Amino acid sequence: MIDPAHLRSLLAARREGYSLERPFYTDAAFHELDIDAVFSNEWLFACNVAEIPREGDYITFAIGETPVVVLRGKHGEVGAFFNTCRHRGSVICTEESGHAKRLVCPYHQWVYELDGSLKSARQMPADFDRGEHGLRPVHVEVICGMVYICIADTPPDIARFKAAVTPYIAPHHPERTRVAFSMTIIEDANWKLVIENNRECYHCIGSHPELLATLIEFALPDDPRANRDFQLLMQEKTALWDSLGLPHQPADGGTEFRCIRLPFHRGAVSFTSDGRPACNKLLGDFTERDLGSVRMFRVPNNWNHFLSDHIIHFRVLPISATQTALKTTWLVHEDAVEGVDYHIDTLIDVWRATNAQDATLVAHNQRGVSSKAYTPGPYAPSEFMLTNFTNWYARKLGEHVERMAGGEKTIRLAVAQG
Amino acid sequence: MIDPAHLRSLLAARREGYSLERPFYTDAAFHELDIDAVFSNEWLFACNVAEIPREGDYITFAIGETPVVVLRGKHGEVGAFFNTCRHRGSVICTEESGHAKRLVCPYHQWVYELDGSLKSARQMPADFDRGEHGLRPVHVEVICGMVYICIADTPPDIARFKAAVTPYIAPHHPERTRVAFSMTIIEDANWKLVIENNRECYHCIGSHPELLATLIEFALPDDPRANRDFQLLMQEKTALWDSLGLPHQPADGGTEFRCIRLPFHRGAVSFTSDGRPACNKLLGDFTERDLGSVRMFRVPNNWNHFLSDHIIHFRVLPISATQTALKTTWLVHEDAVEGVDYHIDTLIDVWRATNAQDATLVAHNQRGVSSKAYTPGPYAPSEFMLTNFTNWYARKLGEHVERMAGGEKTIRLAVAQG
Amino acid sequence: MIDPAHLRSLLAARREGYSLERPFYTDAAFHELDIDAVFSNEWLFACNVAEIPREGDYITFAIGETPVVVLRGKHGEVGAFFNTCRHRGSVICTEESGHAKRLVCPYHQWVYELDGSLKSARQMPADFDRGEHGLRPVHVEVICGMVYICIADTPPDIARFKAAVTPYIAPHHPERTRVAFSMTIIEDANWKLVIENNRECYHCIGSHPELLATLIEFALPDDPRANRDFQLLMQEKTALWDSLGLPHQPADGGTEFRCIRLPFHRGAVSFTSDGRPACNKLLGDFTERDLGSVRMFRVPNNWNHFLSDHIIHFRVLPISATQTALKTTWLVHEDAVEGVDYHIDTLIDVWRATNAQDATLVAHNQRGVSSKAYTPGPYAPSEFMLTNFTNWYARKLGEHVERMAGGEKTIRLAVAQG
Repeated sequence: MIDPAHLRSLLAARREGYSLERPFYTDAAFHELDIDAVFSNEWLFACNVAEIPREGDYITFAIGETPVVVLRGKHGEVGAFFNTCRHRGSVICTEESGHAKRLVCPYHQWVYELDGSLKSARQMPADFDRGEHGLRPVHVEVICGMVYICIADTPPDIARFKAAVTPYIAPHHPERTRVAFSMTIIEDANWKLVIENNRECYHCIGSHPELLATLIEFALPDDPRANRDFQLLMQEKTALWDSLGLPHQPADGGTEFRCIRLPFHRGAVSFTSDGRPACNKLLGDFTERDLGSVRMFRVPNNWNHFLSDHIIHFRVLPISATQTALKTTWLVHEDAVEGVDYHIDTLIDVWRATNAQDATLVAHNQRGVSSKAYTPGPYAPSEFMLTNFTNWYARKLGEHVERMAGGEKTIRLAVAQG
Repeated sequence: MIDPAHLRSLLAARREGYSLERPFYTDAAFHELDIDAVFSNEWLFACNVAEIPREGDYITFAIGETPVVVLRGKHGEVGAFFNTCRHRGSVICTEESGHAKRLVCPYHQWVYELDGSLKSARQMPADFDRGEHGLRPVHVEVICGMVYICIADTPPDIARFKAAVTPYIAPHHPERTRVAFSMTIIEDANWKLVIENNRECYHCIGSHPELLATLIEFALPDDPRANRDFQLLMQEKTALWDSLGLPHQPADGGTEFRCIRLPFHRGAVSFTSDGRPACNKLLGDFTERDLGSVRMFRVPNNWNHFLSDHIIHFRVLPISATQTALKTTWLVHEDAVEGVDYHIDTLIDVWRATNAQDATLVAHNQRGVSSKAYTPGPYAPSEFMLTNFTNWYARKLGEHVERMAGGEKTIRLAVAQG
Repeated sequence: MIDPAHLRSLLAARREGYSLERPFYTDAAFHELDIDAVFSNEWLFACNVAEIPREGDYITFAIGETPVVVLRGKHGEVGAFFNTCRHRGSVICTEESGHAKRLVCPYHQWVYELDGSLKSARQMPADFDRGEHGLRPVHVEVICGMVYICIADTPPDIARFKAAVTPYIAPHHPERTRVAFSMTIIEDANWKLVIENNRECYHCIGSHPELLATLIEFALPDDPRANRDFQLLMQEKTALWDSLGLPHQPADGGTEFRCIRLPFHRGAVSFTSDGRPACNKLLGDFTERDLGSVRMFRVPNNWNHFLSDHIIHFRVLPISATQTALKTTWLVHEDAVEGVDYHIDTLIDVWRATNAQDATLVAHNQRGVSSKAYTPGPYAPSEFMLTNFTNWYARKLGEHVERMAGGEKTIRLAVAQG
């Protein structure tokens, strides 16, 4: 375990606007710290409700080594539980996704209702209290069909985020979609390098030809690098979006989240190799194709693109100090028909390629920051979102170390007395 | 290394009749603790003498990372040694089993006799004392052909076990068998989950159709769940076994071991898919097929079934906190002929399937107990042997931590002075 | 991290002339110690200049987890740098070898000159100081075409080594060669076991038939085991070498290095299966084939053979406590033509086989020293170079622990105050 004093001194010595010190990216104990301080204490993007459309549908994943199950309950509500039986601790739902009328532990067939209550436990004695042995619940928040969960006892506030992003996302109706495709890749890098990679397009020109066919690398409407063409494009598109009542100005997300609508290159309307539509059927009630994309992310584990014809969710989960799982999910209108309205390859080609390119970049980044000669380097102005991210991360760790402080003293006393 | 005070407090907080706390099942330091406190300080089942029938036959395995060799010596006696050359420490016997007139280190050809003494070491100087460089011996106890070893300097008592189980086992003459088949599988679970899985049949109905074709899931002659049919079956079979002088009542093994003879389902005489014999030739001097099975286990690493026509030994060895090797060995009468008296598939089908099913169950158990949300759960009454096991285990660790206490203080002083 | 007091007590208890205690060969923390105390603080063999013949050619490898690049600069000079970008730390040269006019980071295209200076960094602000963000240099010493590097701030002295070995090596002109073949194998053993294996031929008779077809196992001209034939051979060959002005007497390398010219078996002139030449074209300006081989090694990571017709470099790099990479490079005269002057198989057969045999031996050695029953064993007289090696190693660690002592105190104070 990391000594709190050591962590405090590392945080105190941190230089704002620079990448983090080596151990944050490489050390197994810091991975455990991240699981505790960040991933066990924040709202995490889990899935879209479209992934669990019917009562009893579920998906599973693990936060560090802690398995959770997210499911659709009896009345259509979304629930989430620790996926560990209260008898001898087996995982209950063993597959990545599935369907069950009730959750039955495969070991000794303890039966849980979809609300987590223990319905039956055969062979247990008469004085066994089923009420004390229900599944431990996990906090859930559904925002326009996006499911966020939090395993902390007391989750941080998410209301501000919800209020801010809903106007941007709601018109795309993520909850009225179906999954067209999803894929998970394992990247050989710390999750923070994966996030940092996502937070800037400084690297795009060198690595992402498919993406740059449609995406403009400027992240702000008033990017100082932007030329007259971009300014004209912005004026034209924002006028169109204003006329449709679609918000586009950057939301005030601070270091916690970001939400903005930005145009594609002139003539492009979707993330395809040539900018043409990815799906004939538009999302929600849209009739206009030229909506650019709403780029929304929230710390620590999610970014998204909301277009006129499809939505892409990205979910990040740390596996170890040097490995991260990235799940990408492409969604189209719930009535869109594969082979008629859209083709998988056309839909996913750009981001499948982009993800693979990023995986190579972050693996090289990981190898380099593992060096004893590595020292934090300065972010470029166009990497301002990395400054936001590392500031947020440092504050999160700082709060955690103060929470630890009380407990730590107790543990030390126990050791000293032993 | 685990802090003794921390370990003491974990043991003190343990709730009897509940599964263990998370770190006992998941933590690498606790794996090391188990190797030290349990596997380096207990009698371990190694093999059947039938696996090393001739002078110079040997088998090897590792206790944690400590290689040992068990061999048949010059006068038919069984010996065991640390399988590490006294020169520069190479393993001497490099294969899992083999035959050697003498043990010759493959590195520099130091030659050891089968009694461990160093016979020759070429190029060593005149004043080199061969007598000081023999193989370090390991304690051996052979019980009815079952070889138990202990690498502790002073092994715990095994006489009580030997006296108690011999009357049950001896009539099956394990020492007059031959190996028909053996297989080792690696299970993705802590060794204690493997043992707990073996100590109850609460899970059988949900997972083991092949096994339950013949095995009755009640573990006691007076199981409170048993119906009238079982009582009648017990009366009938025990009368038969009494008439043959074969003991069947539960031996008084406390938490250390268990030995009992129990019947198969009516009509079944062996662990085959239909209950029919697995081998035409009966063991020892038996003429009666309907002997049920003697179920015998001993902590920490062994369980067995002794039938009228074959014997199955199970040997458990921890590999890491989350991996365990299970070796299963099927033995038949030494004169039985494959293809004539028995067929491998018929002989092994039931337990090969059962082992594979258990491997899946314990892997799921491991995933679930790794959760930060896992808390120890209550054993069912039919899991009473798990209460025995965890009580025994906790006592074993408690004894170890007290032994450590003296040495620990010395180490701390050294650190403080450094 | 290893407690300095614990390390001091281990070093104090060390018995000279015996193999090391278990943790030095097996423990992950001791691996980190070796990376710090030895590999980050010594001259390491990197490559032959023939591996980077043209301006912009480079090779890369990692010292522990620290990537370095060794390259040929603009004026033919050899340079070395930490292979980590000063921006966000990506490795810059991602392949094991390559060619580049300038070093361009694949992440954001920061451009470095071959002298390590930062030429350009797009998008960085006006006040960004390129002069402060050049690649961090690594010390380089080229000795007769052999490139040694050191990543310490202040490298140890290498002048004595250079002066001592140059007269032996220079006539073979390693710098006027080309790479005929190279291969890297991963051995399942601690790097010190790999080095110990190389430092004695006590094991040769039992494992290396191909090697012993030409190599005489005596390591000294006056080996006490040598017979009259060897003495006559030595007289004859050394008279020849004296007449050619080629040194052969053992250099005074202490525990740091060794350099000596020794004959092959009578009739053999090269490391081939039958002792016949490996390459028709002789090295440098040689006209005489019968030059035996100059055996040169230097702690901690290199050994070599210099023959009349080829050179073999061996480079050792630790991967973990129990894994080591061994790279072997065979070089011939720069004008030798494959298929005409030499055939790859003939050239490499003997040492490819010998390396594979040694890999098996050291893997067995590793398994055995991992035993809790392992205790250091006595080196034979013919293993005197292992006594040298372990003495050198213990001294190196001793120096390191004293350097650590000051810093350690500071860290402790910080912890205590926290």
